[in-house]
This record gives sequence, C-alpha cells and structure tokens, in this order.
Amino acid sequence: MQSDVASGRALHSATGMLAAYVAAAAPEALPETVRKEAARTFLNWVGCAVGGSRHKTVDIALAALAPFSGPAQASVLGRSERLDPLHAALINGISSHVFDFDDTHLRTVIHPGGPVVSALLAFAEHRKVRGPDFVNALVLGVEVECRIGNAVFPEHYDIGWHITGTAGVFGAAAAIGKLLNLDAERMAWALGIAASQPVGLREMFGSMTKSFHPGRAAQNGMTAALLAAHGYTSSARALEAKRGWMNVLSTQQDPTQITEGLGVRYEILANSYKPFACGIVIHPVIDACVQLRKSDGIEAASIRSVALRVHPLVLELTGKTEPQTGLEGKFSVFHAASIALIEGDGGERQFSDRAVLDPAVIDLRRRVQATIDPALAPDAAAVTLTLADGRVVEKQVEHAIGSRTRPMTDADLEAKFTGLAEAYLGAAGTRRLLYLCWRVGALDDVAAVAEAART
Amino acid sequence: MQSDVASGRALHSATGMLAAYVAAAAPEALPETVRKEAARTFLNWVGCAVGGSRHKTVDIALAALAPFSGPAQASVLGRSERLDPLHAALINGISSHVFDFDDTHLRTVIHPGGPVVSALLAFAEHRKVRGPDFVNALVLGVEVECRIGNAVFPEHYDIGWHITGTAGVFGAAAAIGKLLNLDAERMAWALGIAASQPVGLREMFGSMTKSFHPGRAAQNGMTAALLAAHGYTSSARALEAKRGWMNVLSTQQDPTQITEGLGVRYEILANSYKPFACGIVIHPVIDACVQLRKSDGIEAASIRSVALRVHPLVLELTGKTEPQTGLEGKFSVFHAASIALIEGDGGERQFSDRAVLDPAVIDLRRRVQATIDPALAPDAAAVTLTLADGRVVEKQVEHAIGSRTRPMTDADLEAKFTGLAEAYLGAAGTRRLLYLCWRVGALDDVAAVAEAART
Repeated sequence: MQSDVASGRALHSATGMLAAYVAAAAPEALPETVRKEAARTFLNWVGCAVGGSRHKTVDIALAALAPFSGPAQASVLGRSERLDPLHAALINGISSHVFDFDDTHLRTVIHPGGPVVSALLAFAEHRKVRGPDFVNALVLGVEVECRIGNAVFPEHYDIGWHITGTAGVFGAAAAIGKLLNLDAERMAWALGIAASQPVGLREMFGSMTKSFHPGRAAQNGMTAALLAAHGYTSSARALEAKRGWMNVLSTQQDPTQITEGLGVRYEILANSYKPFACGIVIHPVIDACVQLRKSDGIEAASIRSVALRVHPLVLELTGKTEPQTGLEGKFSVFHAASIALIEGDGGERQFSDRAVLDPAVIDLRRRVQATIDPALAPDAAAVTLTLADGRVVEKQVEHAIGSRTRPMTDADLEAKFTGLAEAYLGAAGTRRLLYLCWRVGALDDVAAVAEAART
Repeated sequence: MQSDVASGRALHSATGMLAAYVAAAAPEALPETVRKEAARTFLNWVGCAVGGSRHKTVDIALAALAPFSGPAQASVLGRSERLDPLHAALINGISSHVFDFDDTHLRTVIHPGGPVVSALLAFAEHRKVRGPDFVNALVLGVEVECRIGNAVFPEHYDIGWHITGTAGVFGAAAAIGKLLNLDAERMAWALGIAASQPVGLREMFGSMTKSFHPGRAAQNGMTAALLAAHGYTSSARALEAKRGWMNVLSTQQDPTQITEGLGVRYEILANSYKPFACGIVIHPVIDACVQLRKSDGIEAASIRSVALRVHPLVLELTGKTEPQTGLEGKFSVFHAASIALIEGDGGERQFSDRAVLDPAVIDLRRRVQATIDPALAPDAAAVTLTLADGRVVEKQVEHAIGSRTRPMTDADLEAKFTGLAEAYLGAAGTRRLLYLCWRVGALDDVAAVAEAART
C-alpha cells in the first residue's frame, strides 16, 4: 500500500509524468504535421551544422578534444573527421550554433535542434536507428526541453541562464533515452542525471563558450541516458523536488507547463527558422531591405539615405553604429540594412569581416538613420529610402519572414540550406543531403544522413 | 589608455585576480606545511578511490561509458581498466566519493580532492608531470574551489547546489590549466568555460548521482582547461559579472573571499579527513564508542544499555532507528554506536548491508537511546554505558577525531588507507602505494602512483 502511494505520487509529479509519457510515446502517434515540422527542424539543423563546421571555434574545439575521442563512429558534419558519438555530439552542437542561425522556439528562445539533434544524429552512427524512431525521439526531445523551458521562462533566462544549454540537456537525455528504450523509471533517472548537469551562463555570450552550450548539453544528455540505461540511479523527482532543478535554477515555476496536454499539443509546431544569420530583432529591417532590393529593383548606388522605423528593442540590442568585425556586425542594425540593400541577403556571408569592412557598405551604412516606434510589433519594421533622383520609396513589414505568422517555406529552407552547405559539399552533394533530410522519417538507417554530410 | 583601464579592471576583478595568481604561482612559493597537507590530501584521496573502486556505482558507470573512451592512457584506480584521461577523471572521481569517506573542507563542506585530484592524476598519465608541479597544481586547484566556495557559502549550498560539483569544476580547471602553463588570460577563459558547467543538485543525495558530481566536475574542469589552452575564448569576468556564476548560482556573494590573501593563506590547511565512513555529525559518537571498546576494554556482550548525548543535528540527519541497508546505516546514529561498540571501528565495512543486518548489532542497537543536548558543540558527544554488572561507564568527546582541533595523524591516515586498499592491492602493493603517495612531491613522474594503484 505504501509503495502504491509512493509510486502514485511519483506518477503525478512533473518528472514522473514526463518520463512516463516519453517512455510510452510511439512513432505512430505523431500527427503528420508534427512529422513534417520535425523534418524541417532536422534539415535546418543539418544545414547550420555543415555551414558552421569550418569556423575557428570548431577548429579549436576539435584540436583540443579530438585526442581524447573514443572509437571514431560518428561524423563531424561538413568535415572529414570522425569521433566517438559523445564528442561528435559536442562538436556538431557547436557548429550548428556558431552562426546563431539555428532554429528558435520563440516563446522560450530555446534553440531546440542544437542539444537534441546533435545527440541523436551522432548516436545514430553508434547504433542503427530507423527513420520513424529517429523522428519520434527528435519530437520528444524537443517536447521535453521546450516544456521545461516553458515552466521557468522568463525568470530562469532573466537570472542569467542560457536556456538552450540548461533545458537542452533534458531534451538530449529524453531523446537518447527513447532510442535506448528506457522504461519510465530509468527515463526519470536520465532526467535526474541531466538535471545535475545544466550548461550555460549568458555572461558567455559574445565568446566561443556560447556555442559550447548546445553541444555540451547534447553530450551531457547522451551521457545521462547511457548511465540510466545501465541502471545508474538518480532522483525520481529531479524537476519538482524542493531542491530540484526548477526551484534551484529559477525564481518562478509552473509545473503544469510540463504536464498538461502531453501527446495532445506539440512544442515542435512552435519552432521557427531564421532566414538571416543574426539576432531575431533585426530580421524585419533586413526583410524590408531585401524586398526593396529584389522586388523593387532598387540599386544601392542610387540611394541617398535610409530611414528605419523600428521596435525599441532593436536599438537596445543592435545599436552599434561602427562595427569592426563580422560578429559585431550582427549587433548593428545599420550594417544589416546597408548590406541587405547592397547584396539582397542577410546570410552568414553578409556578417563576415569582409562585409563589415567593405567601403561601399560602410559608406551606405553611415547614411542609415533609425527611429524608435514603440507602436511597432517586435516582428515589424518600416524602411524608407530617399533616392538620388529625389524619389522616396517605402517598404513596411508587418510580420518578418521567419516569424510564426510568416514562416519560412520549404523552398526558403532549401535555399538557406544550399547557401550554407554548397561551399563544402558541392552542388550534387548538397542536393543529395537535402533529399535525405526531407526523407529522414522514411530512412531505414539515419546514419546515411551523417555520412552524406561528411566531406 | 582605454585598454589599460580595461585590463586594470580585469585585473581587479575576482576572476582576473584569481587567474593571474594561479598563472604566476610557482612550486617554490609553497610553504612546507602546505606541501605536507597536499600529500595528506592526496594520500587520503587515493585510498578512498581505491577503496570505492569495486562499488556497483563504479561498475555501472564503467559499463555505460567505457565503450566511448579514447586512448587508454589513464588508470582506473583499484581496477585493471585504463581509459582516456577525461573518462578516468570521471570514474576515479566517482570511486573517491562513493563511500562518503573523502576529505572535507569543513567551512564549505566541499570535498576538495574529488574534483581536483581526479583530474590531476588522470592527466599525469597523459603528459609527464613532475612531483613539485603536481603538488603545486593540487594546492592551487583546492585554493580556487574553496575560495569560490567561501564566497557563496552557505547560501549557494542552502539553495540546493552540491557545492563539491559546482565549485569543484573551477578547481579542476585551475589545476589542469596550471599543468598546461596557461597565461592569465587563458586561465580566466578556463574558469569561464568551467563556470558554464556547474555539476550537482543536492536533490540527488541518496542516489548514485551524488558520486557522479565530483567525477563530472573533474572531467568538466579538465575539458575547460584543454579548450582554453587551445584558444577557446570565454568571458574574462565569469565569476563576478552581473550574469556571472556568483550572481546566477547564489543569493549572496563575497568576492573578497576570492581575492584577499592570495599566496598568503592556503585553504588546503583547513582540509580535514574522515576517520569514519559516514556523515561528519555522528563522528563524535563513533569516536567515543571506539574509545570505550578499545581503551577501556568494554565487551559488547556485557553492555545492558547505551545512552547518547548528542548535538541536535545528529537526530535531524541521522535519526533512523531501523536501517535496512548499509547506506541507511550511515544515517542511523543507533547503528553507528552499536557497531562501533561491537567492532571498534566505523569504516566502510561497518556500514555494509552485512553489518546493518547482523543480529548481534541489531540487538545492541535497540538498546541505544539518544538525547539531544543543544549545549554540545557539533564535534562533541557523550556516551554512557550501563553494564550487565550494574557498573556505569561514560566517555565524553570534546572534539571528535578528524575535526580540525584533533586532526587524524599521519598514522591514522595510513591505517585508513590500508583498510581501504589492502583487499584489492595486497599488503605489499598497499605499502608501496602509501610510500609513493607520501613522496608525491618528490616524484620524477607522478604517473607512477596511478600505475601502482592499478590491479
């Protein structure tokens, strides 16, 4: 009787209910829309990981840690190296985040793909994983990390935690735990071991350590699941206990965010994808400038001045007027507008050192003025050009591309993917990888994707 | 000028001052007393790691993670396996803590050896390390973790963080960073990467995850130092920044605890060693019972009843009257008194399932009564025996053995070490290992210790 009471209490706890749900959830239960969004999340993550794979941050992490790698079973995407799955998860997680171009769960600003997909794809080269199981684990991992994020956002983030790394470790643990067929008890232990390994302070933003967070969360979550699978015990109440994760790492907690509607609503349907390689707040301005350049055929040379009307957050977060590096360019709405008008895009190439120091870009940038309009929504902006011939052209964006109201289309995602991957995989290799990513849910062995993403 | 101001500020920050101190500190600067205490800390840690090495917790962690190990360069103490240094640091850290028998920095309840020595000894099998450099790195690692602990204790611990794993990661990063000859800038980055990887919630106490904490802290700290050595950047103000470690992980901060008296006072001189394999609060009772058994020659069979007078914390933390397992026995002052009177010790063997279920131990345990005396110091207790012949014998302990006032002697540490190691290494092997541990500061290659601790 006592043990019934005890297990009943565990079952009604956030940790217990979440673990039981993940342990029981079958691939067949996923709605088609959810499977589709999982493929989009997967494809976007693979593109970002391949695109970021030659960044100095990745070179350094590989040089430091590859000498400690175990059996070379798992691919480093976009490169030729192979590592053990734990290290591959770390390195691919770094690559996928280094451009700040990966997917975003807007409600919590979690980047769900980094921790979950980095772990899953590396694991799929360690043990054969079929497509339906992979997609199910991906959806469940995203579900777990975003629900835990929902339960503590925004207070947890405001304190200073990088929520992608702190909530992400649970997502990776749940995803790998699912592939390992953990029962509810061991799934709860996996979450417990994950709870003891949060990754990431916001103080690290601006340094290489930011990209370390999703990668390390992937590695920690996989470690937690492997230990739990072998019977390594942990708390069964890691999330909700008095000295559990929610109370220790946040000033506010809403456990119902974790437990309500499990299997009914899916957080992955709220995932979004960035068209531009920078903070989400300047996306509306870039969107407007790209449209002016592309649709209206405005030549940069004919522009006398540029007037921006923006949400207050834009100047608070991206108000740098004289950026000196590509990274600083991501925090300058003036650079972003200038380069988007000149090159018609806001990809990683538009935030390189080359782009930021280009004299023509600097010249136009100095003729960009910005005014705050508190009435604007965060995903809205207006750009007014005064041309050399005296004409005035305006473009208003109500909902920037990439926002939930105007999500990137599959074709947009493919173009982004191609822009990221083609330089390393070639045109044919990129097309083949794209094809495999869209078909991930139908593959007999998901390792084929990792193979195709290696050079 | 601006950059002078900036670097001046960094230098006067807690992170900057600590990093600069560790980067500059030379082995020759260590006082002899500090070197001696380092050898005692080292020896005690090695004994605990060998003694704990066959625990189920270690078996499971090895089974789960050994398949992912890199080049087998580093020993798993007390066993025959070798792993890469990162994994060896994890596993040895688990072994060293699994009996709760490792060293304690009483002011912060940090177990300093676990994170620091686990990392150092594994690393010494990866790259040759001379004795003086090893001891210097050990002292500095302990200094860093305990000072950071001092700055946030007790609030950080009260919230629910297992301070050994959260502060310990800094100690491991500093220790390995020292062996890697990091300059002050990279040492600060190592601390920054460490800050983003705290390990351990107190909610996990009572499960295998508790022992995971010091091991993972060792592994995370080593990872941080390796990355920083290769130029992986991080915040230079990881500890004191608004969204840095001290503010995010504690409600109270005193950074002067980190910066004052560096190189003048040494935290390792405040390290203590447990004579008994259980929580520190029941040590005074065990001490008294052991003395009654040994010095006064009291036979257990002649005892009619036992009356304990104890500090209030004793019954709060260790008030279990009917323990069923060895682990539960550690939380029963009644069992501890009974077995100490019968066997004259409080080692790991006295907290086995066998000991707890022994009918004679149970019989005497049920005749143990405890009374709270708020006037007693935490390291004091009184035990009164009523014997079968009517005689009454009392033993008062003012300061339990192992407390700072009455530290374990070198001979006590050797006896503890032998009790932990002999079953696995044999008498001759144990003596040889003891000899090497005492001489650690004079060894040409510290890897010799790890070799001698392998079976």
